[in-house]
Amino acid sequence: MEKLKTYVSVKDEDHFYHQGAVELLIFNFLLILTILTIWLFKNHRFRFLHETGGAMLYGLLMGLIIRYVTKSPDVESGTVYECEKLKSGPSTLLINITNQVYEYQYKREISHHNVNGHQGNAMLQKMTFDPSIFFNILLPPIIFHAGYSLKKRHFFRNLGSILTYAFLGTAVSCIVIGLIMYGFVKAMVHIGQLKQWEFHFTDCLFFGSLMSATDPVTVLAIFHELNVDTDLYTLLFGESVLNDAVAIVLTHSISIYSPKENPNAFDAAAFFQSVGNFLGIFAGSFAMGSSYAVVTALISFLHLTKFTKLCEFPMLETGLFFLLSWSAFLSAEAAGLTGIVAVLFCGVTQAHYTYNNLSADSKMRTKQLFEFMNFLAENVIFCYMGLALFTFQNHIFNPLFIFGALVAVFVARASNIYPLSFLLNLGRKQKIPRNFQHMMMFSGLRGAIAFALAIRDTDSQPKQMMFTTALLIVFFTVWVFGGGTTPMLTWLQIRVGVDPDEDLKAKAASQSASNLDKNTTKAESAWLFRIWYGFDHKYLKPLLTHTGPPLTSTLPEWCNPVARLLTSPSAYGDQLKDGDTDYIINNDELTENYEPSAHVPVPGSIQATGKEDIQEGDLGLGGYKLQLQHTACQPQKNSLA
Amino acid sequence: MEKLKTYVSVKDEDHFYHQGAVELLIFNFLLILTILTIWLFKNHRFRFLHETGGAMLYGLLMGLIIRYVTKSPDVESGTVYECEKLKSGPSTLLINITNQVYEYQYKREISHHNVNGHQGNAMLQKMTFDPSIFFNILLPPIIFHAGYSLKKRHFFRNLGSILTYAFLGTAVSCIVIGLIMYGFVKAMVHIGQLKQWEFHFTDCLFFGSLMSATDPVTVLAIFHELNVDTDLYTLLFGESVLNDAVAIVLTHSISIYSPKENPNAFDAAAFFQSVGNFLGIFAGSFAMGSSYAVVTALISFLHLTKFTKLCEFPMLETGLFFLLSWSAFLSAEAAGLTGIVAVLFCGVTQAHYTYNNLSADSKMRTKQLFEFMNFLAENVIFCYMGLALFTFQNHIFNPLFIFGALVAVFVARASNIYPLSFLLNLGRKQKIPRNFQHMMMFSGLRGAIAFALAIRDTDSQPKQMMFTTALLIVFFTVWVFGGGTTPMLTWLQIRVGVDPDEDLKAKAASQSASNLDKNTTKAESAWLFRIWYGFDHKYLKPLLTHTGPPLTSTLPEWCNPVARLLTSPSAYGDQLKDGDTDYIINNDELTENYEPSAHVPVPGSIQATGKEDIQEGDLGLGGYKLQLQHTACQPQKNSLA
Repeated sequence: MEKLKTYVSVKDEDHFYHQGAVELLIFNFLLILTILTIWLFKNHRFRFLHETGGAMLYGLLMGLIIRYVTKSPDVESGTVYECEKLKSGPSTLLINITNQVYEYQYKREISHHNVNGHQGNAMLQKMTFDPSIFFNILLPPIIFHAGYSLKKRHFFRNLGSILTYAFLGTAVSCIVIGLIMYGFVKAMVHIGQLKQWEFHFTDCLFFGSLMSATDPVTVLAIFHELNVDTDLYTLLFGESVLNDAVAIVLTHSISIYSPKENPNAFDAAAFFQSVGNFLGIFAGSFAMGSSYAVVTALISFLHLTKFTKLCEFPMLETGLFFLLSWSAFLSAEAAGLTGIVAVLFCGVTQAHYTYNNLSADSKMRTKQLFEFMNFLAENVIFCYMGLALFTFQNHIFNPLFIFGALVAVFVARASNIYPLSFLLNLGRKQKIPRNFQHMMMFSGLRGAIAFALAIRDTDSQPKQMMFTTALLIVFFTVWVFGGGTTPMLTWLQIRVGVDPDEDLKAKAASQSASNLDKNTTKAESAWLFRIWYGFDHKYLKPLLTHTGPPLTSTLPEWCNPVARLLTSPSAYGDQLKDGDTDYIINNDELTENYEPSAHVPVPGSIQATGKEDIQEGDLGLGGYKLQLQHTACQPQKNSLA
Repeated sequence: MEKLKTYVSVKDEDHFYHQGAVELLIFNFLLILTILTIWLFKNHRFRFLHETGGAMLYGLLMGLIIRYVTKSPDVESGTVYECEKLKSGPSTLLINITNQVYEYQYKREISHHNVNGHQGNAMLQKMTFDPSIFFNILLPPIIFHAGYSLKKRHFFRNLGSILTYAFLGTAVSCIVIGLIMYGFVKAMVHIGQLKQWEFHFTDCLFFGSLMSATDPVTVLAIFHELNVDTDLYTLLFGESVLNDAVAIVLTHSISIYSPKENPNAFDAAAFFQSVGNFLGIFAGSFAMGSSYAVVTALISFLHLTKFTKLCEFPMLETGLFFLLSWSAFLSAEAAGLTGIVAVLFCGVTQAHYTYNNLSADSKMRTKQLFEFMNFLAENVIFCYMGLALFTFQNHIFNPLFIFGALVAVFVARASNIYPLSFLLNLGRKQKIPRNFQHMMMFSGLRGAIAFALAIRDTDSQPKQMMFTTALLIVFFTVWVFGGGTTPMLTWLQIRVGVDPDEDLKAKAASQSASNLDKNTTKAESAWLFRIWYGFDHKYLKPLLTHTGPPLTSTLPEWCNPVARLLTSPSAYGDQLKDGDTDYIINNDELTENYEPSAHVPVPGSIQATGKEDIQEGDLGLGGYKLQLQHTACQPQKNSLA
């Protein structure tokens, strides 16, 4: 008898394991299908469906199958049991059913209106994985990779514009969407589709903030493949990366904006608290991310006597790099800050400092590892979005709301891009042309972040309606706008096939004619950046990497003993190497020029790469650096990645 | 009011996310600590604590902290509630508590004796993650990496011995442990520590099979670092890899051995069913794993007209390779077979065929990726084992049982190694010396697999006792035997610092004196392998890779049309390349000789690398191949990996 029971229990256990395997297998299968499809498309130079779009499509089909083909729900599903003895929901519930104790784990609070028949379909339930997996495991590699692969040179050339679009633009977008949606909500209440008390203005703003996170991954992939104009690429990429961070913190701040009395009235105290929250969370996350990166840089730079350096052990180095970067995310989340922002700036800082300290082997390893994780995570997320349309069990489709959101998203994008571009062009030497503005307008796709923010809370009915709407807008923009990128590029006559370095060189040459004028403009607009650049070059880089001038020459004389202690012995001979850092991350040259010696600049430029380059026009990115560039860079070959 | 509620709910949600982040952060923190410790140890050439031992130690300390420092359990913990209306445990339970519906998810059946106060400590619960994560996510990369990095040349030289140790040896070990434990159990019943009906002979055998999975990861790492004699390394590595597979299938077969009537009596039908199960599951898993690898090889080999080959897109190629290999595991699990066995042979087959079709970039990417995943997964598992001692809530420490198990494990190891070595030496030309046998005896560490098998079922009291005991034996063997490896090597006078290729060359040279004699021995012992080798070389390699002779020359003439269709155009010119496959995986030379051209053998050997090499002594691994070896291999530099 006892034996038989054990036997049955083992069988059950086995069944349980296979379940886990089946779901993972389904995802694997979807991803394999996606990869094969992409391969097919690439062969036919078919650019109307990007891999993310394909992944979403396959996810959608699979969701359809799971929803309508798998076995019907359990008998008990949808039945609510009473339990008088319990006063609150414990994390673990032990229940005695016909003399056998079962352990149940708390999953969530559920509103009465959400109790429905699909609740019990085990397959559906297993496929809708925990949003925390989304946040803690799938998003970090994507965001980190964005930060780590930021083309710094081009990024800093356009820093002002990018910051304007990201901060001001996202705020504008959030408010515009919020206002338009509030109008639609009022209309819906008027025609009786919605009850008054369900949807406040803060809810509309919440929706506005989550829908303001753009994700032009499809567009950027095509840009990368076609080598579209670098400035446009950088503007769009920089904006989308920072914009995610802003939108996330904004959403968080709005969700904790809780006016004391009337939720519809404006509460100044609560408003300023929210603004304070926004600034605090953003700054805190930034600090958290950067400090992890600085710690990594210090460890990999560490040069104690009798110690082999960490770069002698590439596996330990890569492991440490990976774990510390992920910890930046997790620590920020654990501290109540925003992990995404932390991991983004961690990536940027790692690329700026730590990357220089890594061994050649680890440089390649980390780059490829994050590239691969980014690729996988991105496709899993888009697959999952496709799946969610059918496997999520509490969708609320409201055509008017969806239509309103669609209108709001486009109006908001337009009132972000066009007015801000106009303002920016007033100050920019190199104007943002009209066709670039149109292209940026067109590239306002919504993706993983909007989805992740929406799925984070789907308990109340307004939130469910928002989730459904956000999902549909993601589908629409990814398929329609993503697919239309190539025709749009042709139609807007944006040049493609640009070699980024040639491009920069040409621009620098054309600008050198009006050099004096430019210097003045730059000096006005980027003084903050120049101070930072000088500080970074003189103190931080020597302290955290092997590059830059030795601290002994940059610090005041009385600091000499400390400076000598802190400077790496190799720094004295390595003053010329500083130029490397700016382009070392840029391209795919790593896989080609595997030997680090290829990165050593031409000897002629030794004297020029000191601190004088800040005085030289274009923020130290002038002509002679471009020469280094050409020594080190190879033509891009691995166009996909 | 509604607003406030939403607010609270968001707060709760946030708290929930942070929880997930906190646990991941703890693991990250433990791993970072481990890496830093290893770095320190490596610097001081301190080999008494391997990284796995360190990970386990840190896990143990963290477990202690979590257990005794974190907040006390919920009030409701340990209270069992009655529910008369329910007839069975549904997968999802909706409970109405004070007018709020909560959703609970089924976790497990729980025996009455397991209901205790710690049940409700959310932190403890979160840290003890689902065994299915172990099986589906952490184990596959480790096992795959073992298969993928198998040093095939050395492996096949010792194939017979390895198979004997793995199959016969594991069976012997299982039975010996089972018998000894049965004795101890009888004794425990006699002194009243155990009730008669709790522990059957099949339970003892179950324990025997799970404890027969050896995991000498510590020992192998030290061997690798010190370049210990290659034959010893290969014997031990090969045995441990295959032995895991055998032990897992054996455990599975025993767990489903269910005699109809008296569980203590021998039931021939059930016994043969178990044997049949064993063979069926093993063969099925093998077939599943190999077929996924063959599919991967075919896809990466695919050469359709108008199609760019997959290797032009290294990211897609790496992704596909990764996903298909993981799918081998998951499919086997989903089909009720053993995923570990499938993924192991998938790894071996991938290395044999697919690896040759990959682009140079993907070769390195896959190698580094799996190396990295192996490194992380291994350390996570050992950390987790340390944690489990304090966070697992149903330990049963029985000193007599633990002592018995310790004795049994050593007696079983001895009755595996010494008698089998004696038998093998009767047939082996190159005897296994006494000191090798002692070293193999000493290297019988238990690790991840034994732990994973034990944790899979911890519901009944005997199973809990087994789990506790297995865990302690893992601790003991990893720390004591792992730490004692270096002294033991010295004591047994086993030579270190051997260059594997020089070694093989020297051995081949010393054997060529008695060439005729050896050929006879080889012909007797390895005829099966020779048939396989010939078949593989003539038909499978040309079909699945770019290497080997074209099919047109190996297939009968009437097959020519088909053969021409199936042969890659490059195969005609590439007959000389076949030698590569045997050593291409072997060492860390990939990171050094990045250019594929370095692998092209010296032109002088073109004629010799045909099928004649099978006739030539030593299974085609004779003198001239060793020359190729020396053209392609560089001295090992990255000793850690």
